[in-house]
Amino acid sequence: MTNYKATLQYDGTRYHGFQRQPQLLTIQGVIEAALQKMTKGQPVEVIGSGRTDAGVHAYGQVISFDYPNHLPVHSMLKALNSLMPLDILFTEVQAVSPQFHARFDVQSKIYEYRVALGRYTNPFLRLYTGHYPYQIDLQRLQIAMADLVGTHDFSSFAASGGVIQNKVRTIYTAQVDSTNYPVEIRLIFHGNGFLYNMVRIMVATLLEIASGRRAQHDIQRLFNVRDRQQARMTAPASGLYLQKVYY
Amino acid sequence: MTNYKATLQYDGTRYHGFQRQPQLLTIQGVIEAALQKMTKGQPVEVIGSGRTDAGVHAYGQVISFDYPNHLPVHSMLKALNSLMPLDILFTEVQAVSPQFHARFDVQSKIYEYRVALGRYTNPFLRLYTGHYPYQIDLQRLQIAMADLVGTHDFSSFAASGGVIQNKVRTIYTAQVDSTNYPVEIRLIFHGNGFLYNMVRIMVATLLEIASGRRAQHDIQRLFNVRDRQQARMTAPASGLYLQKVYY
Repeated sequence: MTNYKATLQYDGTRYHGFQRQPQLLTIQGVIEAALQKMTKGQPVEVIGSGRTDAGVHAYGQVISFDYPNHLPVHSMLKALNSLMPLDILFTEVQAVSPQFHARFDVQSKIYEYRVALGRYTNPFLRLYTGHYPYQIDLQRLQIAMADLVGTHDFSSFAASGGVIQNKVRTIYTAQVDSTNYPVEIRLIFHGNGFLYNMVRIMVATLLEIASGRRAQHDIQRLFNVRDRQQARMTAPASGLYLQKVYY
Repeated sequence: MTNYKATLQYDGTRYHGFQRQPQLLTIQGVIEAALQKMTKGQPVEVIGSGRTDAGVHAYGQVISFDYPNHLPVHSMLKALNSLMPLDILFTEVQAVSPQFHARFDVQSKIYEYRVALGRYTNPFLRLYTGHYPYQIDLQRLQIAMADLVGTHDFSSFAASGGVIQNKVRTIYTAQVDSTNYPVEIRLIFHGNGFLYNMVRIMVATLLEIASGRRAQHDIQRLFNVRDRQQARMTAPASGLYLQKVYY
């Protein structure tokens, strides 16, 4: 028995999210089916660093799994990629201690959100960005993003239905990459944990502030009210990327 | 009755090509359905500058159509875009003389082919590039592309089944954009006309030359033999873009 840690990229467009679901195409389901083929029928459970929703992408998702035989890491990488569809690619495999757990051992994560600007949706970016048609002010955006940094109760930014009681999380950095402005901007968040839909709700709220639809420091108010009904919008899944997981 | 000329972009992934076909989703079919909605039921025939195949994209396809009423061009542009799915975008509309015909009046076209390099397919580029996993020599590629320039009989580079007898065409320029090499290269062809599958067959042959699988000047030989069987491969539709049509 060897415990492996593997890093992968995927285009989430075709998938009903990361997590295995009966009858539905999911990232976990595809990987577990491949591993079961490699073991000639023995099931292998895949642990992800966390779920990603339907349509959400990843450049650096991390999984771990106990594999019944020992394969050299380059053979494992090759075997996995030979069984993956073209929209999933493993980029690294390591053999790790039996204690390593891809979900419990997460220290922090980076999520990135690509926003396509301009009046119309670019036909080639529709599956890889969220589109925001209104004019935005980059300075207002940056000031609002600074309000997110620190340790806060993110109840206003968590989708209802989550089972997690403690909604306090720490955002270490929240930055804008405006290299491609005014065609596109990228919002990059590094934090110790993210609640269900949290990044997508934060992004929608930030864009409303940046376009003048909300007050400059509305995020401070939202932290205080702890009411999901007040941060009304959720940015589309298509713009969200799980960039990196730190252990 | 007003004759309009319109320029559009599309992501061809979901479509069975440009040309209308019964029961199948095509670019022409979607545009004609929108125009028929605008005329409240009166059919409008769309003329394209040429067909594009299933999966082929366009940044600058051009169409013309006779519309029963006169609409200002900005209203026509807005009306068309409001009825388009997210993977088709009109970028310009002009009112033109009744004689203008989007297919017959073409002077020349530019096609671009995006090749993703490297051992594995990038999950995010699979629908927007052709993937070529072998090492290529950019100098060999450039020398081979120069052989294409000029007036030649392209019989070796035309898919069988075409009804066009005269296979002589002129390529004005054939260039490589290697800005993103070794991740990606773009092959750009400007010519007075392109036969069915001609760009995709040329690209596959060029890549075989660039990777040392064919002789440096094999294109000169293929011009002479006029035999499609000798240029065996066709590069995937996903890498091909109709960039510009000149009138």
